[in-house]
Amino acid sequence: MEIFERNFEENLAHFTHQLRHDQMTRFRTEFLALHYYDQAKLFKSLEDEDRLKIYQYLSPSELAEIFDMLENEHEEIEGYFEEMANPYAASVLSEMYPDNAVDVLNNISNRERVNLYLHLMPTDSAREISRLMNYLDDTAGSIMTTEYIAVDMDLTLQEAYYYLRQQAIDAETIYYVYVIDEEKHLRGVLSLRELIINEESKKVKDMMNTRVISVQVNDDVEEVAQLVQDYDLLAMPVVGFDSELLGIITVDDILDVVKEEAESDYSGLAAVDVSEVHETPGSAARSRLPWLITLLFLGMGTSTLISRYDALISQASVLSAFVTLITGTAGNAGTQSLAVAVRKITNKTEDTHVVKAFFFELLTGVATGLIVGIAVFLIVVAWQRNIALGGVTAVSMAAAIIVANLAGALIPKLMDKIGFDPAVASGPFITTLSDLTSVFIYFTVAQMFMDYLL
Amino acid sequence: MEIFERNFEENLAHFTHQLRHDQMTRFRTEFLALHYYDQAKLFKSLEDEDRLKIYQYLSPSELAEIFDMLENEHEEIEGYFEEMANPYAASVLSEMYPDNAVDVLNNISNRERVNLYLHLMPTDSAREISRLMNYLDDTAGSIMTTEYIAVDMDLTLQEAYYYLRQQAIDAETIYYVYVIDEEKHLRGVLSLRELIINEESKKVKDMMNTRVISVQVNDDVEEVAQLVQDYDLLAMPVVGFDSELLGIITVDDILDVVKEEAESDYSGLAAVDVSEVHETPGSAARSRLPWLITLLFLGMGTSTLISRYDALISQASVLSAFVTLITGTAGNAGTQSLAVAVRKITNKTEDTHVVKAFFFELLTGVATGLIVGIAVFLIVVAWQRNIALGGVTAVSMAAAIIVANLAGALIPKLMDKIGFDPAVASGPFITTLSDLTSVFIYFTVAQMFMDYLL
Repeated sequence: MEIFERNFEENLAHFTHQLRHDQMTRFRTEFLALHYYDQAKLFKSLEDEDRLKIYQYLSPSELAEIFDMLENEHEEIEGYFEEMANPYAASVLSEMYPDNAVDVLNNISNRERVNLYLHLMPTDSAREISRLMNYLDDTAGSIMTTEYIAVDMDLTLQEAYYYLRQQAIDAETIYYVYVIDEEKHLRGVLSLRELIINEESKKVKDMMNTRVISVQVNDDVEEVAQLVQDYDLLAMPVVGFDSELLGIITVDDILDVVKEEAESDYSGLAAVDVSEVHETPGSAARSRLPWLITLLFLGMGTSTLISRYDALISQASVLSAFVTLITGTAGNAGTQSLAVAVRKITNKTEDTHVVKAFFFELLTGVATGLIVGIAVFLIVVAWQRNIALGGVTAVSMAAAIIVANLAGALIPKLMDKIGFDPAVASGPFITTLSDLTSVFIYFTVAQMFMDYLL
Repeated sequence: MEIFERNFEENLAHFTHQLRHDQMTRFRTEFLALHYYDQAKLFKSLEDEDRLKIYQYLSPSELAEIFDMLENEHEEIEGYFEEMANPYAASVLSEMYPDNAVDVLNNISNRERVNLYLHLMPTDSAREISRLMNYLDDTAGSIMTTEYIAVDMDLTLQEAYYYLRQQAIDAETIYYVYVIDEEKHLRGVLSLRELIINEESKKVKDMMNTRVISVQVNDDVEEVAQLVQDYDLLAMPVVGFDSELLGIITVDDILDVVKEEAESDYSGLAAVDVSEVHETPGSAARSRLPWLITLLFLGMGTSTLISRYDALISQASVLSAFVTLITGTAGNAGTQSLAVAVRKITNKTEDTHVVKAFFFELLTGVATGLIVGIAVFLIVVAWQRNIALGGVTAVSMAAAIIVANLAGALIPKLMDKIGFDPAVASGPFITTLSDLTSVFIYFTVAQMFMDYLL
């Protein structure tokens, strides 16, 4: 308890001291008593020379426990592996949970190094990992592990329990026991709870739940995540085309999927990748510039359009006062409808037809536009004492909002239909696009009522 | 298997038929064999009259299993409870997991009804639930359950295992066994895995993990969610001020927290609550209008500002062509920096000082502004053949981006410091605010170089 109570910096200094003074026994006793996550946090913060000591002090399987906690920090991990002797690195990888080892290997850019590791590790680990590496990104197969517990349906509960006890050290979760037949087809599931509360002499096949929720190996990870949430599962079995059990996905990996999915939707809406952490303003700027420059060209379209109405503006310069009000408000409305549409698609809360969605958003836009239009009319008339100007502004505003609403709702829906990720249609994209349509609407309406404006 | 294979609509028709033809035995056999989540989906889709039958066919504890799956649909649940006889409703509530029952009761608007239910249920359930209802929203206490397994540290593993088997039916998770002393202080934890793989005769106190990760009852749920993710836990123990064990939070509730948190950040950025599902365009419009109208008034500030530069625009109407380009691009940059800032605060990835954050964003803004400025200069000069106009546009653009960047980064940071949720500072708010500053910068710069512009 003593060490645990100290804060992180003190802990780090304490262990660094032990490493530098060759206190291997004390280091191992104290360090290995920590939770793997705390071990990982300390490991990451060590100086390079001290990390090299760690590779001498800890066995590959002890280090593998730490690396299983670091699974999402691919760049750092790649660096750590380069520091190690190759056979040691291969051992660490083979001791990690296969899904995490696959994750690490898939993120090593040097393919020769990956092959070297696979050659240096035990054949069965290498075969296991190579097989998992074949699954496509974002499919159930890419995040599943093969370290599950499966039993034959003809065992008794007691036999199954003894088998489970033997396997318990290696398995990633022991809390579900999957039941398979001779051809490895998934036939049922027993929770460990059911296994231990029922009569030992009963047969697995009589006690198992045959309505087992499972996913196909090529199913999208987001759909898997939704099912795990809906059914409150701790692990999800993954089967192949013939219902053969291939692996399981555990709830900790599902939490990562949910988090990454949310981060990517959020990044999409803002047109910047919020999951990257930038050390320097230069690298932060680099990550933001591509969208800004792309949208700058779209924005130039709006400028070109406005410049065409030069004569109109010269005659009635009061018109320019309301350009940003209309583009801004329509952009805001478009962002709202975009966010609602993207979320509906992601959540698959409803699978409405494009035509139905069109009319829904049309009516929402009409209702919103009408009310904002009335507000604008009142404000402009009160301020400028010009009913025609109020009318032009109000009608343009309403029309611009309706168009922005429709664009915000339908663009992601169409992108989804043609197989693109709808979250890529960002808020800034919609506002910039809506600037163009809003300006067009505004000046067209203004031109029509020019005689009354002056 | 037969029923399970059919699709949802057929299932619904099948069970509706049984309910209407009083086939209670067949209904119970087939319906109760389904997974609780599927039972819940069917239950929700039944007609009112058929639901009333369900209250006769299913026992309170059978219905409680269904309601435990519906925990997040508060409005519907409130309606269902109103349909039931009060004693039956109270029984259902007392059979639900206490955290879910609390969730339901907290969302019933009629306080007298809540009290009635509490009076009608068994005293110990009522006491348990009332106690949990006292914890504030978004604290660990508000989502914890009291149905955990805790054992005395002096037991042997065998004794602990037998105790666990007895308790297994009621506990929300049996996969962690918490170890407490006579005063109920949390002293350690044993996973069920450790319990079953170790020698039965060993003492709990010798085998338990004393570095148990726990949270205080008043800790923020988002912090709890982060810890569960970091440490890959299936449940988190919740303790009071004196380390006494009060409850546990299970990973399925953590998944809900992560999901709600992501939804609320996303909603904040878009200035619309994406978690609400609207049946009619009118209700969708109502949810979007408050922000639109509020921002309309802020936008009027920009219009007022532009109208002050009426004389300038009359002289050089070409200026109006670039207003939306500058406001649009600065708004996009502001949205990006806002999103990055909000995510940094939510993730607590770094706790940088406001001053440091200021300089970081200042430099990011300068780098971004410089590059976009150069691009704009080249485009405007090539298009309008007017170097002064190119210079004015480029300088204003760069300055507007720098200001928007700073506003986007610092407003959420300041809101967080003074105790507001930074996610409320939405993208539309930043773009509308940035319209004002951008227009001010643009016309000020233009005025300064007026002589060269014409």
